[in-house]
Amino acid sequence: MSESSPIPETRVLAVASHVVSGYVGNKIAVFSMQSLGCDVAALNTVQFSNHTGYRQWTGSRVSAQEITDLYQGLKQSYLDDFDMMLSGYVPGAAALEAVGRIAEELKNKAKSKPGSFFWVLDPVMGDNGTLYVAQDVVPVYRSLVHHADLVLPNQFEAELLSEVEITDMASIGRAIRVMHERYGIPHIVITSVSLPHPDHPVSSLSVVGSTMTSDRRPRPFKIVFPAIDCYFSGTGDMFAALMVVRMREAVHNGGTGSGLMQRQSWLSDDSVDALDLPLARAAEKVLASMHEVLTKTAERMEQTMEKARADMAADVDGVGIAGAEEAHKKKLHLLRSKAAELRLVRHLDSLRFPKVEFRATRL
Amino acid sequence: MSESSPIPETRVLAVASHVVSGYVGNKIAVFSMQSLGCDVAALNTVQFSNHTGYRQWTGSRVSAQEITDLYQGLKQSYLDDFDMMLSGYVPGAAALEAVGRIAEELKNKAKSKPGSFFWVLDPVMGDNGTLYVAQDVVPVYRSLVHHADLVLPNQFEAELLSEVEITDMASIGRAIRVMHERYGIPHIVITSVSLPHPDHPVSSLSVVGSTMTSDRRPRPFKIVFPAIDCYFSGTGDMFAALMVVRMREAVHNGGTGSGLMQRQSWLSDDSVDALDLPLARAAEKVLASMHEVLTKTAERMEQTMEKARADMAADVDGVGIAGAEEAHKKKLHLLRSKAAELRLVRHLDSLRFPKVEFRATRL
Repeated sequence: MSESSPIPETRVLAVASHVVSGYVGNKIAVFSMQSLGCDVAALNTVQFSNHTGYRQWTGSRVSAQEITDLYQGLKQSYLDDFDMMLSGYVPGAAALEAVGRIAEELKNKAKSKPGSFFWVLDPVMGDNGTLYVAQDVVPVYRSLVHHADLVLPNQFEAELLSEVEITDMASIGRAIRVMHERYGIPHIVITSVSLPHPDHPVSSLSVVGSTMTSDRRPRPFKIVFPAIDCYFSGTGDMFAALMVVRMREAVHNGGTGSGLMQRQSWLSDDSVDALDLPLARAAEKVLASMHEVLTKTAERMEQTMEKARADMAADVDGVGIAGAEEAHKKKLHLLRSKAAELRLVRHLDSLRFPKVEFRATRL
Repeated sequence: MSESSPIPETRVLAVASHVVSGYVGNKIAVFSMQSLGCDVAALNTVQFSNHTGYRQWTGSRVSAQEITDLYQGLKQSYLDDFDMMLSGYVPGAAALEAVGRIAEELKNKAKSKPGSFFWVLDPVMGDNGTLYVAQDVVPVYRSLVHHADLVLPNQFEAELLSEVEITDMASIGRAIRVMHERYGIPHIVITSVSLPHPDHPVSSLSVVGSTMTSDRRPRPFKIVFPAIDCYFSGTGDMFAALMVVRMREAVHNGGTGSGLMQRQSWLSDDSVDALDLPLARAAEKVLASMHEVLTKTAERMEQTMEKARADMAADVDGVGIAGAEEAHKKKLHLLRSKAAELRLVRHLDSLRFPKVEFRATRL
């Protein structure tokens, strides 16, 4: 431990996209983990000027071969001694296969020391019913997900992995059961579930998590939290990065006597209740940080956009010219995208010392 | 301001190398600035598995065209609204020219609002008498250094820029005078000066800084601090990144009434003494952070290497086989390189709240 960190020394391999400006992929994940004390090796799968939500960007992708080469570079210099791995967006099936081989190799290397390596996989495929990767990426995820220790699909990605259509809390429970049973995924958190439920306030979201028992039965819980009416990019990446830290912290805190950290996939005893899982403790802290950062981002965003609209209204040049309205709309979209970038560097304390308000309850 | 930051909102463009594992270039600069509250746009000029001090690495460089394209990508989405820019290692003359054009453009754009853009240039060319860039990079630095607001050469790079041979404190004073006069560089800090001086303890280093007056006269100061007997990589990059933050902080603190931040290059009045310069305040804080992080890194390194040597002595396989001694030496070098990686993520408080011990004195 150190004055700066809630966890013991932790070396993480983070594989995801890099954007020059803004906060998605590794750009947000690396800082989130570093600011909580992780030694992060950041393998960037793309370098883009900004995230694709702006609808225009420049930059280039890294090939599958380059990903493999970078990992070989680490290996040859004894730099592959990772405690954890986090993988996010990977461009295309070949590159994803390369990342899968890295995870599998690290997993195999750790076999003689159970619990010494833990892979957090964010299976980035799409959202709200729309794929944003090529169709051939889906079967690759299905083929490698059994190596992962913790998988973090959103609702749509959970459907793709489980092949269960999710329409209510009961079907979400079925999707989780299928993922535990079919793939043996030890820990699952389905992020940003938006399903009506009589117990939930109208504008709320939830995450649903579960750690399987030794015979692959689910132990589901949910955490309900207020939705913020704004579309942010990078929230999934921030969630995943903070889960890396908080899961390790929860297992470390709950496990000194139990030796939980020396167990394969940090699996709690079958006697541990869903609401007492380290996974539930971790998700509660992560959501607390997220809610603070998102709230502060939304507040600031409103001010920024008010000013932007006023500036643009004052700038009447070109009004009436063909295409001016389109140009105006485009500029507003770009300014809104920038204003919605997550403001975590100004709110480090929200990452480090979140105040937990939303607690895990039964599904 | 915010609870997390000593400076007002600051958007920085950081152009330097990226390593997957370890802490040099943008990998250390971006985190250093982010953890102090800067919104950093990180344009990576290379992606290598590790720094070149390991003597082996994999990865690739980004071309001059790609650097230009990434910047154009920022511009087209209104993401070029930078308050500051930090540039470090750039691979080759063409890429450096591309970076110089970006800085020049940002500088020109800010002309109508003096002080609204500030370029910190680390002219990475070599160290201890050895060039580690191609010969044709040197004239490119000489041609673009007049756009910079603060230049941070080491002793060797100061010789290359000024064409003054530095052998003692008097010649360092001459080198600074030449850089102010010939290029009009407003602020200079020469880092890691190792020159004998009757007043200095035997194992000490110093930095020598100066902010020019309105007629380009130097106002030199030095800060002497104890040397740590170990070779670390990334110290120059960390120094530069922290200078970005602390210079802005010192100008902000010293300048609310004086309007210093609204002045071209944040140049203090001619009446301000060398020892009262914001540059001196900034360098003191930066050295305090550096000294804390380096001390902690060195302590830990010693433990790590003791254990590594013991492990390797126990592993007697292959002793006597031809090449075994070479392999042993190589492995030790690689392990030492890893153990010498700067440990700043575990010591965030050393970045955020450094205790200033070493003060600026007259040259």
